[in-house]
Amino acid sequence: MARRAAAGLLRRHLGPLAAGETLQARGMYPKQYGAANHAFSRFYSIQGQQRSLYGFRTNVETDDTQQSARMNFEVQKRSFSSAAAHVQRNPAYSVLNSDDVSYFKSILGESGVVQDQDRVAVANMDWMGKYKGSSQLLLLPKSTAEVSKILSYCNSRRLAVVPQGGNTGLVGGSVPVYDEVNGILTCEAGCVLENLSSYVENKGFIMPLDLGAKGSCHIGGNISTNAGGLRFIRYGSLHGSVLGLEVVLADGTVLDMLTTLRKDNTGYDLKHLFIGSEGSLGIVTKIAILTPAKLPSTNVAFLSCNDYISCQKLLLAARRSLGEILSAFEFMDRHCINLAMKYLEGVHNPLPVSPYNFYVLIETTGSDESYDKAKLEAFLLRSMEDGLVADGVIAQDISQASNFWRIREGISEASVKVGAVYKYDLSIPVEKLYDIVEEMRSRVGDMGQVLGYGHLGDGNLHLNILSTKYSDKMLAQIEPFVYEWTSKQRGSISAEHGLGLMKAEKIHYSKSSEAVQLMASIKKLLDPNSILNPYKVLPQSVLFQKPRVTVIFKAIQDKII
Amino acid sequence: MARRAAAGLLRRHLGPLAAGETLQARGMYPKQYGAANHAFSRFYSIQGQQRSLYGFRTNVETDDTQQSARMNFEVQKRSFSSAAAHVQRNPAYSVLNSDDVSYFKSILGESGVVQDQDRVAVANMDWMGKYKGSSQLLLLPKSTAEVSKILSYCNSRRLAVVPQGGNTGLVGGSVPVYDEVNGILTCEAGCVLENLSSYVENKGFIMPLDLGAKGSCHIGGNISTNAGGLRFIRYGSLHGSVLGLEVVLADGTVLDMLTTLRKDNTGYDLKHLFIGSEGSLGIVTKIAILTPAKLPSTNVAFLSCNDYISCQKLLLAARRSLGEILSAFEFMDRHCINLAMKYLEGVHNPLPVSPYNFYVLIETTGSDESYDKAKLEAFLLRSMEDGLVADGVIAQDISQASNFWRIREGISEASVKVGAVYKYDLSIPVEKLYDIVEEMRSRVGDMGQVLGYGHLGDGNLHLNILSTKYSDKMLAQIEPFVYEWTSKQRGSISAEHGLGLMKAEKIHYSKSSEAVQLMASIKKLLDPNSILNPYKVLPQSVLFQKPRVTVIFKAIQDKII
Repeated sequence: MARRAAAGLLRRHLGPLAAGETLQARGMYPKQYGAANHAFSRFYSIQGQQRSLYGFRTNVETDDTQQSARMNFEVQKRSFSSAAAHVQRNPAYSVLNSDDVSYFKSILGESGVVQDQDRVAVANMDWMGKYKGSSQLLLLPKSTAEVSKILSYCNSRRLAVVPQGGNTGLVGGSVPVYDEVNGILTCEAGCVLENLSSYVENKGFIMPLDLGAKGSCHIGGNISTNAGGLRFIRYGSLHGSVLGLEVVLADGTVLDMLTTLRKDNTGYDLKHLFIGSEGSLGIVTKIAILTPAKLPSTNVAFLSCNDYISCQKLLLAARRSLGEILSAFEFMDRHCINLAMKYLEGVHNPLPVSPYNFYVLIETTGSDESYDKAKLEAFLLRSMEDGLVADGVIAQDISQASNFWRIREGISEASVKVGAVYKYDLSIPVEKLYDIVEEMRSRVGDMGQVLGYGHLGDGNLHLNILSTKYSDKMLAQIEPFVYEWTSKQRGSISAEHGLGLMKAEKIHYSKSSEAVQLMASIKKLLDPNSILNPYKVLPQSVLFQKPRVTVIFKAIQDKII
Repeated sequence: MARRAAAGLLRRHLGPLAAGETLQARGMYPKQYGAANHAFSRFYSIQGQQRSLYGFRTNVETDDTQQSARMNFEVQKRSFSSAAAHVQRNPAYSVLNSDDVSYFKSILGESGVVQDQDRVAVANMDWMGKYKGSSQLLLLPKSTAEVSKILSYCNSRRLAVVPQGGNTGLVGGSVPVYDEVNGILTCEAGCVLENLSSYVENKGFIMPLDLGAKGSCHIGGNISTNAGGLRFIRYGSLHGSVLGLEVVLADGTVLDMLTTLRKDNTGYDLKHLFIGSEGSLGIVTKIAILTPAKLPSTNVAFLSCNDYISCQKLLLAARRSLGEILSAFEFMDRHCINLAMKYLEGVHNPLPVSPYNFYVLIETTGSDESYDKAKLEAFLLRSMEDGLVADGVIAQDISQASNFWRIREGISEASVKVGAVYKYDLSIPVEKLYDIVEEMRSRVGDMGQVLGYGHLGDGNLHLNILSTKYSDKMLAQIEPFVYEWTSKQRGSISAEHGLGLMKAEKIHYSKSSEAVQLMASIKKLLDPNSILNPYKVLPQSVLFQKPRVTVIFKAIQDKII
């Protein structure tokens, strides 16, 4: 495309986006539509209307009905990638009895101990309807002290506990504390992310994370699962934003690490162990988190590229030229766009229909509307002149910006309408990221349709394989190939969704055996009876292997000394 | 000050700063002058000219001369705050013998095993001349495999090891790998920070950290001490920037966590244990780190405020108005300025002499020179109109910018010239941060001069108490008051300098006993013979207490099962 023509074509689509309004508008999509993509990691936080100050539930696993855990844990549908491991109930766990229930009632009162089968069933089912737990008791603690008492008791009785949050509302008593000078929010784990966002936005700040499930997910669950989401490219991981935590350990010990300091080099930084450990090392009860200043100007561009190498070069150029205002760099292949246009209502392709292979959404967020837009325009013109961008538009109003984001965030929703979806959430170095999509496409052939999209700026690919119905044959084409391939590239088999039950046995694809062994040692140190979130995160084989003789010898020797 | 007058006065000082040059110019100060302030945490990284691929030394502690550790570890001068704890040598450690030396030579060759007393003496002394170690052997491993063999041997023999880096040059073979698309640098621990900075700056990126000691400190030491430094306010902690590590554990196990992924939620994020653990849990051998894009435009303003509350309000306003371009917010009280003017050569106060109580240095870094400067000017004018700023100048050229930074970074250098300096590095919530300075001033009265300055944007106060000579009476006025006061505010007694030997026994001022117990448990898990960096970070009492009976019972029980 000639230099003048390219500039002209781009210019034709350009238009201003009203300052101040777009940030709020952007907030709408995840809430309305984005859940399917981003809420995946919040596997324990969807159902029900229960209210609890702390916003997590403690499901005591039981065996009263003599149903085997194998039956209870079996996969309901073979949707969303591989079948979960069929879990054999570990006989080391005790069976709940009426004395236990009485004890919990003495701590929490009648209303805090739920035995009603319907309510418990809701808590036992994950939001996708894929996994069903076998817990028969639902506990609703209201304070750190109650959590501590419950865990202390369960640990001594060896009753397994599934920490759960996310589906309870923010109650009046749980008011966060905000330090405006330092920009630090301190709150209880049960606060809903969206409420916290509104709370700090009123003070001129934003939460460092934003995700589709924000209307229902709890900050405690976000921390426990190390949620990524839409602001990751700009504000980074929760390991950088979280300043302090209060955590209750498996034996009931309250671990106070709730500092509100940006800098603290006194001893080991223990809080990081609990960020992303999926509730298996302790239950997060309070959080102190750094909040960035709210910036008033947002611009969104929707672009097409002819090939993947152009997407990569565009990312590099965007990092350099847009620098401090770049806040999103999302990519989709044309299969995604075609699907979105077919299945999503009210969505249209902002670019002329043509054989572009890739689409990129770029968002900037800054403090000056006119400057930011001028900068984005200049960058896009230069990118077209350099041949990186084939065509593009900048949203002229909130409605256009909404449409751009709706395409990107609606892909997951559109995928489900085809029939069966095998979903993978991978981290892969950017230059190799699209190779797996193409290899997968040739593997499945006519059996299915392969979509590649995701947070390119973070090296995070969402790989979806679509088919009209589930089949073992298809699964055999996908797994273990997808894990082995990712492992070979030193990628991650779970970029932002965690391991949970589904991938606990697959951790070795992303972590060395020495690292997994050390994780198991830390799990045993913090939760020696393995009562917290049983069967998840780590392979059962490393958790329940016989201790090595050297370890026992060491302990005995210490006693003698 | 009337609205017009304020604007006029400020305008008088305004002037442009050449784009592109300032960033480089800024890089000069830390190298030339900043070491005294920022290199404090790099206690093992100063002396000598030894070259090693991995850039750390393994000092095997010995007792050949029958000198007690008490003598060897005794404080050389009672400078820079409290005396170090007098350490009793732990008899559990073995004494080095000639077989050990032969073994090390078989691994490292003659040149890798240093017994020369002068060379060993250099490695035994910290850069301030305050602490002297008792090691008698210096080992210079060149690869991860050699480190692994050394540690495996020392662990089996119970020989204590002091990991050391920082004073060895970058050798040709140790070329870092840079991934420009993803902006990720992978390198060996022995790379000098300044060399890495130059390396990535040539590619259009910067290191996420910068500090005074950058010309000599090693990236491995930076990670192990969780170095803060000058870019902290903008790019945050190393916990957010470090993507992967390779670490050798005490028993020689090589723990490969060297991923180059921005997102990876597969199991516990173990690397954080080693960031800031001061070499006491393992030896960092390789690093993958995220590098931000290099921004061409830097502006520096030097301002005065009448009171501390104005400094606080100014910080809040700067966060909101300067948003994404704010890269430093440093403050100094007038005692600091007076001292700098008196003792630093070639430095002048850019503001008219007047009774201002506080001074603030604000730096912005962005991608557009004219826009950034206009924004900073507008912000400063507004702040003067609001009465937050009494007077101020924006640097008009590199020379002015240098002068502004030289004042701030020269305070530590100027302090030393008075005679005796008691130095503290505290994290305190910003609104309380200056209270300790005033309380200290009333405590020491005529005995000394109290300076308060630091990274206000990070809540990090450098508190210096100056006197003509050291005295126990003065120390008694300062300690334990300073620790107790900080503890009461839930502050940190070591914001960026670590605990080392000096504050190992003082950790309880900043961490709960449950947290310290858990740190000790993790230390015992990773380094059961406590061979790594002995006597440091954690109190000896928690490390060497008898194991509780329950723990032994648990291990024996496991064996029976």
